[in-house]
Amino acid sequence: MSLKEEIISLARQAKEAYYFLSQASSEEKNKALQEVVKSMERRREEILKANQQDVEEGRKKGLSKALIDRLTITEKRFESMVRGIREVVSLPDPVGEVIKMWRRPNGLLIGKMRVPIGVIGIIYESRPNVTSDAASLCLKSGNSVILRGGSEAFRSNQAIVEAWKEGLEGAGFPASCVQFVPTVEREAVNILLQLHEFIDLIIPRGGEGLIRKVTEISTIPVIKHYKGVCHVYVEEDADLEMAVRISFNAKVQRPGVCNAMETLLVHEKIASSFLPRIGEKLKNAGVEIRGCPRTKEILPYAVEAKEEDWYEEYLDLILAVKVVKNIDEAIKHINTYGSQHSDAIVTSSYSRALKFLREVDSACVYVNASTRFTDGGEFGMGAEIGISTDKLHARGPMGLEELTTYKFIIFGEGQIRE
Amino acid sequence: MSLKEEIISLARQAKEAYYFLSQASSEEKNKALQEVVKSMERRREEILKANQQDVEEGRKKGLSKALIDRLTITEKRFESMVRGIREVVSLPDPVGEVIKMWRRPNGLLIGKMRVPIGVIGIIYESRPNVTSDAASLCLKSGNSVILRGGSEAFRSNQAIVEAWKEGLEGAGFPASCVQFVPTVEREAVNILLQLHEFIDLIIPRGGEGLIRKVTEISTIPVIKHYKGVCHVYVEEDADLEMAVRISFNAKVQRPGVCNAMETLLVHEKIASSFLPRIGEKLKNAGVEIRGCPRTKEILPYAVEAKEEDWYEEYLDLILAVKVVKNIDEAIKHINTYGSQHSDAIVTSSYSRALKFLREVDSACVYVNASTRFTDGGEFGMGAEIGISTDKLHARGPMGLEELTTYKFIIFGEGQIRE
Repeated sequence: MSLKEEIISLARQAKEAYYFLSQASSEEKNKALQEVVKSMERRREEILKANQQDVEEGRKKGLSKALIDRLTITEKRFESMVRGIREVVSLPDPVGEVIKMWRRPNGLLIGKMRVPIGVIGIIYESRPNVTSDAASLCLKSGNSVILRGGSEAFRSNQAIVEAWKEGLEGAGFPASCVQFVPTVEREAVNILLQLHEFIDLIIPRGGEGLIRKVTEISTIPVIKHYKGVCHVYVEEDADLEMAVRISFNAKVQRPGVCNAMETLLVHEKIASSFLPRIGEKLKNAGVEIRGCPRTKEILPYAVEAKEEDWYEEYLDLILAVKVVKNIDEAIKHINTYGSQHSDAIVTSSYSRALKFLREVDSACVYVNASTRFTDGGEFGMGAEIGISTDKLHARGPMGLEELTTYKFIIFGEGQIRE
Repeated sequence: MSLKEEIISLARQAKEAYYFLSQASSEEKNKALQEVVKSMERRREEILKANQQDVEEGRKKGLSKALIDRLTITEKRFESMVRGIREVVSLPDPVGEVIKMWRRPNGLLIGKMRVPIGVIGIIYESRPNVTSDAASLCLKSGNSVILRGGSEAFRSNQAIVEAWKEGLEGAGFPASCVQFVPTVEREAVNILLQLHEFIDLIIPRGGEGLIRKVTEISTIPVIKHYKGVCHVYVEEDADLEMAVRISFNAKVQRPGVCNAMETLLVHEKIASSFLPRIGEKLKNAGVEIRGCPRTKEILPYAVEAKEEDWYEEYLDLILAVKVVKNIDEAIKHINTYGSQHSDAIVTSSYSRALKFLREVDSACVYVNASTRFTDGGEFGMGAEIGISTDKLHARGPMGLEELTTYKFIIFGEGQIRE
């Protein structure tokens, strides 16, 4: 069998599994997930061993320390992976929910019902826990999934998928509910991304380069999870203590994630009182500040920001700071340089709060809270498969509901169109 | 300016217009639409004249009678185009609706608010009324629009857009809310489909060839409006009079549209009583029947159906007919050969009605009603921009709501993440 035939056959099986899964009840799906928990635990040693091999090979290849860290499944991370499946069991099943239903003048009763999307392809990089996290969310929402992880985690991903297949079969589910691309050949991804006949949605998880490549090649719809260039804007009337607390949290609490602040915007009227206070705290936390000329006047330890800095997702202890004339300049800056992810204003003005909420064109717009809350769990949606920076289908945190589509169900009594 | 620069400049202006439009109130947008009604009426002669030139040139080029008919703006069609704008004025504005809102344990108040998508590109074929229909739906939902019609309707479309721009400016709106690609060069479309920086969504309206080409080239998300291979399945327990009425309506009332029936499936137990009744009526209406072997035994005037017939969207007085063993075979046939558009069962069985609704994987699934109801107006959504055969973002009839996305608005009181 050629590689192409192999990938097509794998996708065809996934589509058949989807027909099975789309009809499974919540009880059946939960039972299957519980079987997977058991088989994951049974195969713990195997999975950890496969992971060790990946890690050793990664070291030989000279992967960076950060990459090796992301690749490693510690005992704690293994536990958290298994707990993740249990948490998905406890989440409500969105499938079958009738979002609305209405009667037409001719008596037709029309309902909009949530149904699974179909076959979802997940293309991701080094972290092997994505394998199990993505599979559990897809299964619970009635979708079959085709997984293609990074080559450096190949053995780990394969071992996790084998445990999954064993669990699924134990519950009487087709093993092909969770498919794994059994090769590290890059050509496999190119083939996969053309199979719109079998695959309904592609979700790439990883760096900007991966996402761009996938979007360019794919003839299947893609939901992108691009970078988060998040802003906090401090208004002239802000409670400065609150502004310090929120800005510090948004930058420092976990700088390596997409909802961390990358640029701080400050109203010119309070720049000289606010910047020294937040600057001191940030400096003590080891944050490098890249400021506009006015910021540099106030904070002598700031380095000069270049035009590129306003676009930058540092994911690190670096912060761009700009003093602006007013809220209009702040909003314009965010809509121009931001990534439509998460942006916050700190203000005590009712009308400026509403203006900011209305005019900032981002997935999540905050008043007086840290951008770090952009997260499926924090929003109360349960686990998330990612945070969409796209506008179509799903925007912001994507949970189980966002892994469904809908169909119209129409109850008639013989109606015809005149 | 090169063609590329020209298209980019046009898209950039559309994006700026979107920022304006997204902030316009419903009242302001309705006022602008009413100004457009006036300017359309003022420019009636100009539009009809431009259309006559298109029609004459079309005749010279030897366009088919059907194409010339679709191209022609009669007085009646002009009236209906203007009435269409008035109807959109009367529809509720979806922008700003808060779909849901909830409070988190930490006090954060999180809402999901409908907002416009941004800049929408519509690529369509010969019917010039699409120009005005699409513009009014996009404007009302706060989106700016870039229109690219067929070359044979170039003068008509241009004249309609000029009237639109005059009306918009009269209401103090930027004329660039409605942009028109001012050339028939094909390269312009290729350029347009790469401008994901400025354009958020592409909706192609036309034949399968156009849609496939657009999908292949575009780096912008596309919502496809493919063909409708719609089925009616008559169960063994169906009220045969109702089954005749529904099947006849679904095939004959308007055969050239996507929600017309293309294949009739009949349970084997009633084939010999039902097929002669519907067959006679269809024959008298001039319908050619292409049947499976069993159908041919019962209806001697049927011609033999080939494998391709089960995939075919005839859009004509032709019908494929197949006798099936049971509901499972019917559902499998629909999910295999259909186009996930609109499918109906005629039955008196409660459990088979529910089974069909659940297992048929189509945008609109009917019990005891004609597939011809799949339409934004008939569903009570007001006007429609099309009927999506995609599963992402919008499925089935797309009205104003489906031309919006959402953003999360978060009201805090100083919350930070621990």
